[in-house]
Amino acid sequence: VQQPASAKTIVFVLYPGLTPLDLIGPLQVFAPANHFPEAGFRVVTAGERIEPMETDSPVRLTPEVRLADVPVPYGVIVPGGGMPTIRTMGNPVIRDYLVEAARSAEFVGSVCTGALILAVAGLLDGRKATTHWAHYRTLEQLGATYLRQRWVEDGKFITAAGVSAGIDMALHLLARLTDEQTAKQMQLSIEYQPEPPFGPIDWSLVDQAQSGEARLQQAREILSTDPELSRRLGASIPG
Amino acid sequence: VQQPASAKTIVFVLYPGLTPLDLIGPLQVFAPANHFPEAGFRVVTAGERIEPMETDSPVRLTPEVRLADVPVPYGVIVPGGGMPTIRTMGNPVIRDYLVEAARSAEFVGSVCTGALILAVAGLLDGRKATTHWAHYRTLEQLGATYLRQRWVEDGKFITAAGVSAGIDMALHLLARLTDEQTAKQMQLSIEYQPEPPFGPIDWSLVDQAQSGEARLQQAREILSTDPELSRRLGASIPG
Repeated sequence: VQQPASAKTIVFVLYPGLTPLDLIGPLQVFAPANHFPEAGFRVVTAGERIEPMETDSPVRLTPEVRLADVPVPYGVIVPGGGMPTIRTMGNPVIRDYLVEAARSAEFVGSVCTGALILAVAGLLDGRKATTHWAHYRTLEQLGATYLRQRWVEDGKFITAAGVSAGIDMALHLLARLTDEQTAKQMQLSIEYQPEPPFGPIDWSLVDQAQSGEARLQQAREILSTDPELSRRLGASIPG
Repeated sequence: VQQPASAKTIVFVLYPGLTPLDLIGPLQVFAPANHFPEAGFRVVTAGERIEPMETDSPVRLTPEVRLADVPVPYGVIVPGGGMPTIRTMGNPVIRDYLVEAARSAEFVGSVCTGALILAVAGLLDGRKATTHWAHYRTLEQLGATYLRQRWVEDGKFITAAGVSAGIDMALHLLARLTDEQTAKQMQLSIEYQPEPPFGPIDWSLVDQAQSGEARLQQAREILSTDPELSRRLGASIPG
């Protein structure tokens, strides 16, 4: 059983260099909906082109369709990554796609630094949001209010913290779009009862403020050839 | 900085139809080692062929190298999946690769039903192991002792429970191969502080014994054309 092509479509946005766990965590939670018509939606991966894309790990990912094939999605999720994601903030095709999609989508989501792509597209202006802990200053600089939560909802926008947080966000979102029982069944299916072997994160290992400034500075450097983005990132313009 | 080609190689085995989170969870934990020579190993994905492979989700994965290119790995991890993984139990190329690799590997690991591939290759005979909760009877039938734990170590073999459990296993294994500090830094990097939105799994939603029998029967059916596997799975031979 497959969803009809007319079903509401949830689009996972692929681009070169992303962090695959950002994508695959929530995709694994949502993908089975493709086999259950009662879910009422189908899930696709979409990129600028249908071709194998490098990631930050030794594996390439190929999306199913092109972004242009799914212009009016029911929902969108944008994964994050490291420097390639910062570079993708400067990609007008993806930014324009998200701005258009957000007009009518039921939800627009991100994982990790995917939030920076939403933010640079102007979609998180004045909103509460989250991102990978190390990139929070860049998010703030782009007009959002950063919260160090596992995920943050503000209107139709839902943003998850770094990398693995996409799984938690996806289970929450699946319950919102279907019901709690469906989400709990999915949790069982992926046997999601985490036992981090060393317990919670040891936040004393990092200086979040310092990391935040360093990552913001890095973003300014990576995007320095774009005057408009440089201005939005608060870069001092040489001259 | 990249690891030299002579570095100890950890191989993630790809095959068509796998569950991508089984693979990507541990891969995301290990992949950064490729950029830190002090880790002492490099990580690759390998398949029978270097080509985009379908998965159980709407995304295709392409491995970096062929299994034949990495015949003597330092470690191996085999992800699982649904019916395609059961079919892969009947793939002699992958079984033979694992048997050969296990002779000299420092560790041989699996996630989810990847354990069934190890088991059918004879590698878990008389060992304690785990797998996806629904497939435990198949694992037992193949000669292992199933434990419902997040991961199980027995000698050089380390097996994780279903799908998401590969992340926990990988952090543990990374600490074993490097040190706890390195693993905790990686936990921070992937911001792995899970908050399942509905708390722990509600095991009352399933009848594990019944599921186990159903999945064992399914495995017998899928592999019914192979007399040797049918015998090992305890299938009643017609005629």
